[in-house]
Amino acid sequence: MADALARLQDALGERVDTHAASLEEARADRSGFRSDGPPLAVVHAESVADVQTVLRIAHETRTPVVTRGAGTGLAGAANAGPGEIALSVRRMTRILEISPNDLLAVVEPGILNDDLGAALAPHGLWWAPDPASRAISTVGGNIATGAGGLLCAKYGVVRDAVLGLDVVLADGRLIRTGHRSVKGVTGYDLTSLLIGSEGTLGVVVGATLKLRRLVPGDVCTLSAFFPSVRAAARASAAVTAAGAQPAIMELLDAAAVAAISALLRVAEAAPGSAQLTIQTDGPGARAEAEAIARVLRDAGGEVAMTDDADEGERLLAFRRAMHPAMAALGTSLIEDVSVPRSRLPEMFDEIARVEREHGVVVPTVAHAGDGNLHPNFVFDGDEVPAHVWAAADDLFRSALRLGGTLTGEHGVGLLKRRWLADELGDDQWRLQRDIARVFDPRGILNPGKVFAP
Amino acid sequence: MADALARLQDALGERVDTHAASLEEARADRSGFRSDGPPLAVVHAESVADVQTVLRIAHETRTPVVTRGAGTGLAGAANAGPGEIALSVRRMTRILEISPNDLLAVVEPGILNDDLGAALAPHGLWWAPDPASRAISTVGGNIATGAGGLLCAKYGVVRDAVLGLDVVLADGRLIRTGHRSVKGVTGYDLTSLLIGSEGTLGVVVGATLKLRRLVPGDVCTLSAFFPSVRAAARASAAVTAAGAQPAIMELLDAAAVAAISALLRVAEAAPGSAQLTIQTDGPGARAEAEAIARVLRDAGGEVAMTDDADEGERLLAFRRAMHPAMAALGTSLIEDVSVPRSRLPEMFDEIARVEREHGVVVPTVAHAGDGNLHPNFVFDGDEVPAHVWAAADDLFRSALRLGGTLTGEHGVGLLKRRWLADELGDDQWRLQRDIARVFDPRGILNPGKVFAP
Repeated sequence: MADALARLQDALGERVDTHAASLEEARADRSGFRSDGPPLAVVHAESVADVQTVLRIAHETRTPVVTRGAGTGLAGAANAGPGEIALSVRRMTRILEISPNDLLAVVEPGILNDDLGAALAPHGLWWAPDPASRAISTVGGNIATGAGGLLCAKYGVVRDAVLGLDVVLADGRLIRTGHRSVKGVTGYDLTSLLIGSEGTLGVVVGATLKLRRLVPGDVCTLSAFFPSVRAAARASAAVTAAGAQPAIMELLDAAAVAAISALLRVAEAAPGSAQLTIQTDGPGARAEAEAIARVLRDAGGEVAMTDDADEGERLLAFRRAMHPAMAALGTSLIEDVSVPRSRLPEMFDEIARVEREHGVVVPTVAHAGDGNLHPNFVFDGDEVPAHVWAAADDLFRSALRLGGTLTGEHGVGLLKRRWLADELGDDQWRLQRDIARVFDPRGILNPGKVFAP
Repeated sequence: MADALARLQDALGERVDTHAASLEEARADRSGFRSDGPPLAVVHAESVADVQTVLRIAHETRTPVVTRGAGTGLAGAANAGPGEIALSVRRMTRILEISPNDLLAVVEPGILNDDLGAALAPHGLWWAPDPASRAISTVGGNIATGAGGLLCAKYGVVRDAVLGLDVVLADGRLIRTGHRSVKGVTGYDLTSLLIGSEGTLGVVVGATLKLRRLVPGDVCTLSAFFPSVRAAARASAAVTAAGAQPAIMELLDAAAVAAISALLRVAEAAPGSAQLTIQTDGPGARAEAEAIARVLRDAGGEVAMTDDADEGERLLAFRRAMHPAMAALGTSLIEDVSVPRSRLPEMFDEIARVEREHGVVVPTVAHAGDGNLHPNFVFDGDEVPAHVWAAADDLFRSALRLGGTLTGEHGVGLLKRRWLADELGDDQWRLQRDIARVFDPRGILNPGKVFAP
């Protein structure tokens, strides 16, 4: 280990950071997990060559490498501990190419989502993945976790928006996966395999992103309150069943509505009320919003609707206050299960059951259009209490029973590794772990994450 | 081998077919390649259990297995030869589930694309992948090759339209990959890895397909003739640059136009003319078609346009006559390179150069919206002559130089295995082959395909 650090310092000079504050920061992301102690060093890579140097030294000295972007992950995958190198690509923020004609951009991984968006807008372009954290999270982090966001039902997830990757392998070699064309089936789709691999297969040092043209027309925003979360969930199902395709459809359950109302000091809706926030876009935004408003009213909703941008932001602000409202209640374990959207009402019944049986409070926001729920297990203190883990375990199993998945967009990391085999089955779990060994025969890439040791 | 055949017959009875005509048929697909001799047997699997039985016996006896659907592939990947089991899943045609609310269907692999389409239409649903062969090709074949089709620029490729797979592994075990929800990042994306793996990683026995609602509104069809292929290619680039998103945009070069005109006995356009066929759909189809017509006329095109379905079919019939027109000229080696769409004019220059320098005729149709070209190397006789291979080699290298890929949608199979490492690089080629070994340690799954022996 001392050898690895000395060699890193020798090769990379001041880019090897051993300040106590830097090491401390690298121990955690935003999952609530924290490693057992500080890593060897944080290396601030500034180029592909820097990353290759780190991996070569790590490979030769068998030193674990934990790759990090902005550290906003919610599963603990980027947490670095004793004896590990924290490899930060946060300084690699260049946009190498924007091609409006081919609707693609080539970028380094450390660029923030919002900064990319700002650079693309003057070209009339955007990159669809839209995590709620876009102001603070990186494109590379999106790719490493296979992140989703609010717009996925209409505009797809990260996998739908990446054409190719430049990847440094465990021993420092560089490969290029994928292509620059819309189609391409030469060999296996390693691009998709690497997306969501959480630092266990290689280090993404460049990405060829598939862009969209900015959507013309207005945006219409609707807000609707319902007497119960089940009624709101049924209304959201009715919206999709009616063939509407909103850009955004967010559902807040009663506990979430109450917490946000308290935070924003707005008059609370009737106790037990749940809420939907919906946006439509494109040339038919207004007609679609009006059709949706009818569906929501038929389903018992109290509906407000606007095509004014400021008023729309005001309606959306209620939804955006979810995280601060949770922070005001205590510490949260933010969950991320996903179910087929038709099972959303049943999943909310399951959440209510888990609350009752485990004596926990679980305010929940859902991306209702795609069936992805974020139940927030709120508790006091820093450490997740045992009874909260038991409740979360119960919730995960409920989601799997309903044909759902453990994680829609946050990833496995540390948080869900102990449930991974429950979803994959033992045969697929072993197959996946064996694939990881092909990429990383010495086991130095983010060991202990995703696959339980 | 005798042992393998006897055990198959013992376990599967009459589903093990050793008729000479069946064995002969299993030697070839539609690539022009044919194996050295008949396989051991064709097994007509009728269930997942049948497939598992075949793989268990094959694994224990180390007998190669070549999985087949309808045999319409264009790269030789499904050709079975001496000592190999041809495993046909063509009889597994059931639709197990159609869920309009979750926009998904669960199907067996042997169902024809058109039969699936016919079953989905009454629900107001469709599965977007639309290979030109849809009347005769299977969904499983689409998945095995990662097929594309005419609608990909607007509606995506197979990878965008599959949520999960049921896969029998090399030793007969069954795994389920993916999920039933829009989002899901639990573990690695084996679904994408298996799509386009051409029978080398496992046998797809079931697929959970992501559906779309039928597009409302009319379809408008445009046909435009241009004085040269370069002019037509520039016009197609101008259409996408204008922000239009046609459902179909097909380009025929001058040799293709001449051959089709001769076949259909229509008055030929001026010598050297190239042609674009474009369709728009959705609520804004007519307005979009009118905007496209203006772009095409500005680019020097002679434009016909209609929103009448029959007249639209008549315009599209010209494009659909491409394959019969090629068959009338001789035997074709059908190529499948793809380039970033902005490089389409340069790629046509390269095709003209290849024709000049190698003394070959290469009528070409392109899916212009996504940069995928199908140059047809026409020759006499059954065997591809050496000078045609040399010309194809030159063409492949041109596509790679232009930032393109060897195969947009047909796959590698036998046809392109010798160029695979040129595109992937040696490091990635070896990595991919090592991944195949994890799935198939005994090397019984379609040996000799994709990765050159």
